[in-house]
Amino acid sequence: MSLQINVFLMKKTYFTAGPAEMYPSFEQHLRSAFDEQIGSISHRSQQFRNIYQHTADNLRILMNIPASHGIFFTGSASEVWERIALNLVEKESLHLVNGSFSTKFHEYTAAVGKNAVALKKPMGEGFDAAEIIVPANAEIICTTHNETSTGVQMHIDDIHALKRANPDKLLAVDMVSSAPYPDLDYNLVDTAFFSVQKAFGLPAGLGVWVANEACLEKANKIQKTGLSIGGHHSLPALWKNFQTFETPATPNVLGIYLLGKVAEDMNKIGIANLRETTEHNADLLYDFFRKHDAYSVAVQNKKHRSQTVAVANTTIPTAEVIKKVKESGMIIGAGY
Amino acid sequence: MSLQINVFLMKKTYFTAGPAEMYPSFEQHLRSAFDEQIGSISHRSQQFRNIYQHTADNLRILMNIPASHGIFFTGSASEVWERIALNLVEKESLHLVNGSFSTKFHEYTAAVGKNAVALKKPMGEGFDAAEIIVPANAEIICTTHNETSTGVQMHIDDIHALKRANPDKLLAVDMVSSAPYPDLDYNLVDTAFFSVQKAFGLPAGLGVWVANEACLEKANKIQKTGLSIGGHHSLPALWKNFQTFETPATPNVLGIYLLGKVAEDMNKIGIANLRETTEHNADLLYDFFRKHDAYSVAVQNKKHRSQTVAVANTTIPTAEVIKKVKESGMIIGAGY
Repeated sequence: MSLQINVFLMKKTYFTAGPAEMYPSFEQHLRSAFDEQIGSISHRSQQFRNIYQHTADNLRILMNIPASHGIFFTGSASEVWERIALNLVEKESLHLVNGSFSTKFHEYTAAVGKNAVALKKPMGEGFDAAEIIVPANAEIICTTHNETSTGVQMHIDDIHALKRANPDKLLAVDMVSSAPYPDLDYNLVDTAFFSVQKAFGLPAGLGVWVANEACLEKANKIQKTGLSIGGHHSLPALWKNFQTFETPATPNVLGIYLLGKVAEDMNKIGIANLRETTEHNADLLYDFFRKHDAYSVAVQNKKHRSQTVAVANTTIPTAEVIKKVKESGMIIGAGY
Repeated sequence: MSLQINVFLMKKTYFTAGPAEMYPSFEQHLRSAFDEQIGSISHRSQQFRNIYQHTADNLRILMNIPASHGIFFTGSASEVWERIALNLVEKESLHLVNGSFSTKFHEYTAAVGKNAVALKKPMGEGFDAAEIIVPANAEIICTTHNETSTGVQMHIDDIHALKRANPDKLLAVDMVSSAPYPDLDYNLVDTAFFSVQKAFGLPAGLGVWVANEACLEKANKIQKTGLSIGGHHSLPALWKNFQTFETPATPNVLGIYLLGKVAEDMNKIGIANLRETTEHNADLLYDFFRKHDAYSVAVQNKKHRSQTVAVANTTIPTAEVIKKVKESGMIIGAGY
């Protein structure tokens, strides 16, 4: 029996891993969006281009994303799994699989006909860079920074070390349930992606895909072999439109607007402060799990313990804990 | 020089083909969504399943969609172009192409490696069933009910006749900028799809895909040949999850909620009344274009003239008309 708690957005009510409680300023920004008739503007208008740029600029500040990387919008982070499989894998990929979401990334890649090699660990265990042997033919290494299903993280030092040890391969980071928390060095990360319904505290329906020019070159190269890189949201199409802050198809304009506003608010607090608060809250939670007889920390290795989604095992049936906590007006999630 | 006017949602301010002015009850439903914390609910919860069912039920009533057809949600209607190409075309498709959007449907299908045959007409001209010779090997006929880019419609009688003449082929209808206006007979339409930012007057970021069991069988058959039907939002995955009103990946829950509410409001007015008002408004507009020296109706053949997106040619530069109209507080769109 286990419990899942969202640490990055620990607020009043929702402590589920995500969809999370809405960001405190969400109501205010939703009101502004309504007043500014954001729902009615064309994605080919200057007003939209300004919104896209504002959101991209604020994400760059918040997550330290350099100009070498483009920032693109999709319908969901799940869609990005498929886009990466089509645009960044000609034949073979390596996936570090230790939970439900890394499993899906692996399955999506196999489903589009690639030789998706999986390096597997049991649920609850994490990966260290030193133990990973990358197949010679793997073109990309697909990592999951935060396995939502188990509360296991891959330490960013290991993510960076993996790229340093394999500079000729692309490195992808699924940061769905941790962005903007991890302080990734984008000189060592070719592509990363996330959703907005987790640590950004926004309604679901928008994926964000970050990718560098090496990714664009790879997509162009794959296309030249005659393989399909997809008709919808191919990286070259996203990149081309991004040059003028446009999108190839009508995007979730309201979602992009709200993300820019929340990223701006987070920048006012400062990412360093947000990270410190998150780590402090995670310490408090793990400390509680350790001290209380009915709970134990699910992830044994401290280095692999997530700072953004804390998972505990309980001797009390999960449903009972959730019910009891709900009586205090709080909602926490059951483990996978 | 041309102008584009949205007829279905002719209201106070926005007359652009879409994104349109928000539906009158949009603010009220957005407020309810906020109060009910729709942004924070899980897509694996009973609350979400109730929302999905409510939206599907109301779309069925509004658009007369029988139980034989599933109703699925994607990130956009553009995404559905690609899903149809992957899931419903093994080798060859036929596309009726007479504008920017039917061109994209054709291009998407070719981009995923299918033999996408195009039957082309100049912009502004429409298709009649009688003149269409369907290639023997085409597995699906892809029609566009309303070519947003030109204001040309394909009459529903012709769409139905096309299926009657080709009962062994699948028939797809792109109704992006006309749904829920066209009174399609789903016994003769295997699959159809639309966006919510056009005639539903909702923010962009949600596509709706309607497909019957013949489509599901086709997708399963294609998968058995070893061809990829995609990793994300494959029809079998959407269909399986739909059995319990769930989705394979996290969807735009807020968008689905709002669509259900607006469809319910439209059902209160009644689709027959909505259609009558639309046709009346279209008549008024086309009549004005005919009577006024500076304007002329862009689509010559009355049968091909859209009831939901009226396009006029003008002798006055488009920008001037748009500016003048804007002074009266109204926004209309330039033609393509």
